[in-house]
Amino acid sequence: MRNLLTGASAACLLAFGAGAARADEGMWTFDNFPAAAVKATYGVSIDQAWLGHVQANAVRLSTGCSASIVSGQGLVLTNHHCVADCAQDLSTATSDHLKTGFLTDSREEERTCPGMQAEVLLSIKDVTDPVRQAAAGKTGADFIKARNAAIADIEKSNCADKEAVRTCQVVNLYQDGQYKLYTFKKYADVRLVFAPELQTAFFGGDPDNFNFPRYDLDMSFVRLYEGGKPVATPGRMVWNPAPPKDGEPTFVAGNPGSTCRLLTADQLDFLRDVSFPMTLTQLAELRGRLIEFGKRGPEQQRVASHELFGIENSYKVYVGQLQALSEPGFLAGKRQADAELKAKVAADPALAARIGDPWEAIAKVQAERASLYAPYMLLEGRAGFYSPLYGYAVDLVRAAQERAKPNAERLPEYAQARLPLLEKEVLDVKPIDQALNQLQIEFWLLKVREVLTADAPQTQGLLGKDSPETIAARLSASSLADPAVRKALWDGGLPAVQASKDPLIQYVLATDAAARAARKTYEEKVAGPTGQAAQKIAAARFAVYGDRIYPDATFSPRLSYGKVAGWTYRGQTIPATTVFKGLWARATGQDPFALAPRWTAAQGKLKDDTVFDFVTTNDIIGGNSGSPVLNAKGEVIGAAFDGNIHSLGGAFAYDGAINRTVVTSTAGATEALLQVYGRTALVDELLAGSTKSGAKR
Amino acid sequence: MRNLLTGASAACLLAFGAGAARADEGMWTFDNFPAAAVKATYGVSIDQAWLGHVQANAVRLSTGCSASIVSGQGLVLTNHHCVADCAQDLSTATSDHLKTGFLTDSREEERTCPGMQAEVLLSIKDVTDPVRQAAAGKTGADFIKARNAAIADIEKSNCADKEAVRTCQVVNLYQDGQYKLYTFKKYADVRLVFAPELQTAFFGGDPDNFNFPRYDLDMSFVRLYEGGKPVATPGRMVWNPAPPKDGEPTFVAGNPGSTCRLLTADQLDFLRDVSFPMTLTQLAELRGRLIEFGKRGPEQQRVASHELFGIENSYKVYVGQLQALSEPGFLAGKRQADAELKAKVAADPALAARIGDPWEAIAKVQAERASLYAPYMLLEGRAGFYSPLYGYAVDLVRAAQERAKPNAERLPEYAQARLPLLEKEVLDVKPIDQALNQLQIEFWLLKVREVLTADAPQTQGLLGKDSPETIAARLSASSLADPAVRKALWDGGLPAVQASKDPLIQYVLATDAAARAARKTYEEKVAGPTGQAAQKIAAARFAVYGDRIYPDATFSPRLSYGKVAGWTYRGQTIPATTVFKGLWARATGQDPFALAPRWTAAQGKLKDDTVFDFVTTNDIIGGNSGSPVLNAKGEVIGAAFDGNIHSLGGAFAYDGAINRTVVTSTAGATEALLQVYGRTALVDELLAGSTKSGAKR
Repeated sequence: MRNLLTGASAACLLAFGAGAARADEGMWTFDNFPAAAVKATYGVSIDQAWLGHVQANAVRLSTGCSASIVSGQGLVLTNHHCVADCAQDLSTATSDHLKTGFLTDSREEERTCPGMQAEVLLSIKDVTDPVRQAAAGKTGADFIKARNAAIADIEKSNCADKEAVRTCQVVNLYQDGQYKLYTFKKYADVRLVFAPELQTAFFGGDPDNFNFPRYDLDMSFVRLYEGGKPVATPGRMVWNPAPPKDGEPTFVAGNPGSTCRLLTADQLDFLRDVSFPMTLTQLAELRGRLIEFGKRGPEQQRVASHELFGIENSYKVYVGQLQALSEPGFLAGKRQADAELKAKVAADPALAARIGDPWEAIAKVQAERASLYAPYMLLEGRAGFYSPLYGYAVDLVRAAQERAKPNAERLPEYAQARLPLLEKEVLDVKPIDQALNQLQIEFWLLKVREVLTADAPQTQGLLGKDSPETIAARLSASSLADPAVRKALWDGGLPAVQASKDPLIQYVLATDAAARAARKTYEEKVAGPTGQAAQKIAAARFAVYGDRIYPDATFSPRLSYGKVAGWTYRGQTIPATTVFKGLWARATGQDPFALAPRWTAAQGKLKDDTVFDFVTTNDIIGGNSGSPVLNAKGEVIGAAFDGNIHSLGGAFAYDGAINRTVVTSTAGATEALLQVYGRTALVDELLAGSTKSGAKR
Repeated sequence: MRNLLTGASAACLLAFGAGAARADEGMWTFDNFPAAAVKATYGVSIDQAWLGHVQANAVRLSTGCSASIVSGQGLVLTNHHCVADCAQDLSTATSDHLKTGFLTDSREEERTCPGMQAEVLLSIKDVTDPVRQAAAGKTGADFIKARNAAIADIEKSNCADKEAVRTCQVVNLYQDGQYKLYTFKKYADVRLVFAPELQTAFFGGDPDNFNFPRYDLDMSFVRLYEGGKPVATPGRMVWNPAPPKDGEPTFVAGNPGSTCRLLTADQLDFLRDVSFPMTLTQLAELRGRLIEFGKRGPEQQRVASHELFGIENSYKVYVGQLQALSEPGFLAGKRQADAELKAKVAADPALAARIGDPWEAIAKVQAERASLYAPYMLLEGRAGFYSPLYGYAVDLVRAAQERAKPNAERLPEYAQARLPLLEKEVLDVKPIDQALNQLQIEFWLLKVREVLTADAPQTQGLLGKDSPETIAARLSASSLADPAVRKALWDGGLPAVQASKDPLIQYVLATDAAARAARKTYEEKVAGPTGQAAQKIAAARFAVYGDRIYPDATFSPRLSYGKVAGWTYRGQTIPATTVFKGLWARATGQDPFALAPRWTAAQGKLKDDTVFDFVTTNDIIGGNSGSPVLNAKGEVIGAAFDGNIHSLGGAFAYDGAINRTVVTSTAGATEALLQVYGRTALVDELLAGSTKSGAKR
């Protein structure tokens, strides 16, 4: 299923890495980690064994998160908000795991998370040449198509006959500057082991999101299974329950989702003036609808609340990013940086001849982009506005159509290598709230009519003589909420899809041509020309800065370095750590500052001065959620779960003075697991064979 | 009551008129109308008699609209959306005048509109010198206070003992460049006579708002009463039911609310980067809540729908304004215009010495403004977020406090001259929906916590240990919905207010100091320094351009000129008129494109080619709603009700090629009144003594 929360990702698809990185800056690939800089700054030696150990235990979750293997029995540490979808899917009107938590006393009680897949990176191989050659000389949509076809071929051939246990992915780095084949070990059966209450994991709620000081146990555990049994993972990372020390070096291994650090200033203008205002206002309105929907009753509150979390989280990210772009002098500085790189290129005639003026080419694209962006986003990029049933329908219709084509001819998300996960996502059992789904489709069609206008052919194609309200009500009678119906359509392929009487399938069959057309036009006029120009800028950057640069984030495995440290802003200094005592002080008894009953009961048993959350200077971004925070020995001392408010500008630039990673510490977590949740067996598993330094039993 | 929908007004308070106006540009005062330009462009002679006749029949409505006297018995033409509040207030769960319309068969059925007051301009007198002198040498908040005190004194003394029938208002023109005392004849009893169904007045709804072609009967009638009887108005404007002719000259007399045509580029940067994003996202979220609130049931739908119209209308205005500001080259052009005026000043040493560099002073203010804007708007400018009960509470508390002070010491909205209308607004009977009111207060407090953060002292002052939801529920138990309670508090003054047990009164008493402080800080750091600098820029502009400039709009009587004309945009030409035939084609049967039953029934009786709506080049803006559109003879040929989408950029600049006023024609209205609504007596009244040219009986 298409992840519709990755608007930032789409917006910044064409970003690439900055000039030579400063201290603590960068989301580095495992094959280009700046060990010398780390040695110089922190005196820590990072060798291949260290890197190999970390890479082998760093996990990517298909739900858009990061994680780590922390026991010999396949136990995986991640954030609560990374398994909140799962906890929601495993809940019912009478059993709400977001409210009460999810606790297991035996392996038998561990339950598979719908749609979740875990991956561990096995190897990296450079495939830049064949991909480049396939697209050489092509322009516009042909450039995109040829590149994607080459990638699809490499992914398919390298994982042939191993799809059940391997994922092959060509990762685009430095904006078409490099292509590397990442091969992952794949785990398709991931089961929920432990999740605290949402109000514990997300204490402070949206008001405290991206803030610090913080008092969140945003930590959960899942377990990898194969053949119905836990996977043996003897090489696991060590869980070290000692508290962090101010200034101690830290490393974060994870999958940062998307940064836009070196878009040209013209591209950033576009984000500020066109993309962000449209996205923010739509998220805000949908947020209002979800809040009010939740007031219909407790069950509506339950089903809407998790959806709302995602919307509010995205909303706050965009607000922070827009503020960063609007900061006086910021865009002028970006324009200056563009000019400096151009000047360095111009000073070298041979380089200048090879590079040309891709900055101007990108500038020219922006005007066209301003008029094509809305139809592209509304018909394709954000079509359905998070409606799960609409998402199923599009995937079922398109997968049926695309699977009938040769691999190289398909839309890339339906290429052979991508189908196993897609099939899992479409077929796994998940509860669907029909009324909420209706709200989402109605909202989508209302925005189509509002933004594109009632007279636009695209609007008329989607609405005919009907209103958004009428169509949404009609489509919500879809039977796609039934997994058996989805399976029949998936297995039956195009004939089954075309014969389906389901209103949503019929609707997508009737309207999908317009969505594909909007996408093709956007690729032809925007993505293609931009990709070609960005390739040139990337080449200029390699020529000028060599390998002292890191690629922009693309939700692929990365490693960052930094240290435990607070920060000072406008004269106010924020310490690096919080302790349990602060939680008691901040609890008002009212949502979102209310303690879960287990915590109120356990208050006397927890030590007031135990470190709960802390911050580090590591350079991370959304997608890093759940990443292990490691000490110099490579031991886990926390799970990264957020950035501070200043980190949101990190989409465009890293500022080591104020940009901070927010972490739930193993110290606080270990104590809470024992004293609040009574998870003796779980803690025993975590500490088995560890140094036990600092263990609190 | 404070009109909370005038965010644009607050944002642009510091605007002033452009350089020498181009053809059709300008919202001119009656004492500086460019008759020579009109003569040169259109060959029409506008003399004092013409101006006097129009001024004497042009009406300002206290609800933020314009209107005109169109019969000898005090009948007043305005828009439906200008009386929609009234129609809503006169409705109940079982009698919905927005749905069914409001039709009267006799004077006895005409009903007073709560809170509505009508004013007709009697005279204009220059009072620039005394106001200037009072504020001379003052800075910051003292500048604002001294100016306001002088104004309060002039207004009070000139209307002394005549408050029941006169309004005295000092109008700020050319941004503290001129102050003029406008004296109005006042009508405090305005009764609703005729309103069509909302779906007829607002056919096409929000999707078609600010669009054209259009098919709206956005027209209603009220009547002026004195002593319980209709006012005799023999000098009324003539209702001419002839259709408009392409190219014929047109004049619009009304009260444009707010323009920002010559803010400096730095001030426009602030609007784009800080003000509009915050305003737009808040409106969007509230919109989502109101839409979903309306889905709770038919009664909630009814009470929310009119509130929703206001929100959606404002939202679309801001979207259009933001688009205009973000148009490539627009802000660069503004910066260029600033530089040109500065250069002209610099070229004249004496002038340069007098003016200094107010542009730099304004630039410096913007950084401070960026941090003060949010607390100012949330605590004061938009406090309560349209909650009527909160509005009552603030007015009751502050009026009691302010009335105890000398006139010159009061907040200006509680000065003696403003109290009669305020009292009427607070005491008139209006229905209040408690649940909707609770939603508005909750939303406001949620935004306070979100934007200012949970840790801000202002947030803690408003919330304490409670949540926004808890407080809103508590405050909604207020008894201020009862007019008798309000009257007792108004009449009882400060002792009664302080003794009140009403939770909302107690809440405002406890929190209002913080709101006043935020306002005072904003006046000291932003409004004061900006006002002083803008005064200098206005002086520079007068020195350079003389009287060939018009002041920015300030919701005071103005006159614009232009002609009936369509426009061409991106190769597409839009004709100037629509006819009934187009309405039948556009009707889909589904909201908001569904015909009211009366119209479906009357379709065969209406002539397909009768002009329904039309567009002109007149330069108008929000506040002009309901303005009479006049032909060269000064006869009414329509009621202006909207601008096209390009007119929204008119807040910052007028573009005669595409900026259009949208009008309901008297031709279509006359036919509809007779054939759809059977309003024979009303049409007889309109046509009595008129030329009857084109009358269709």
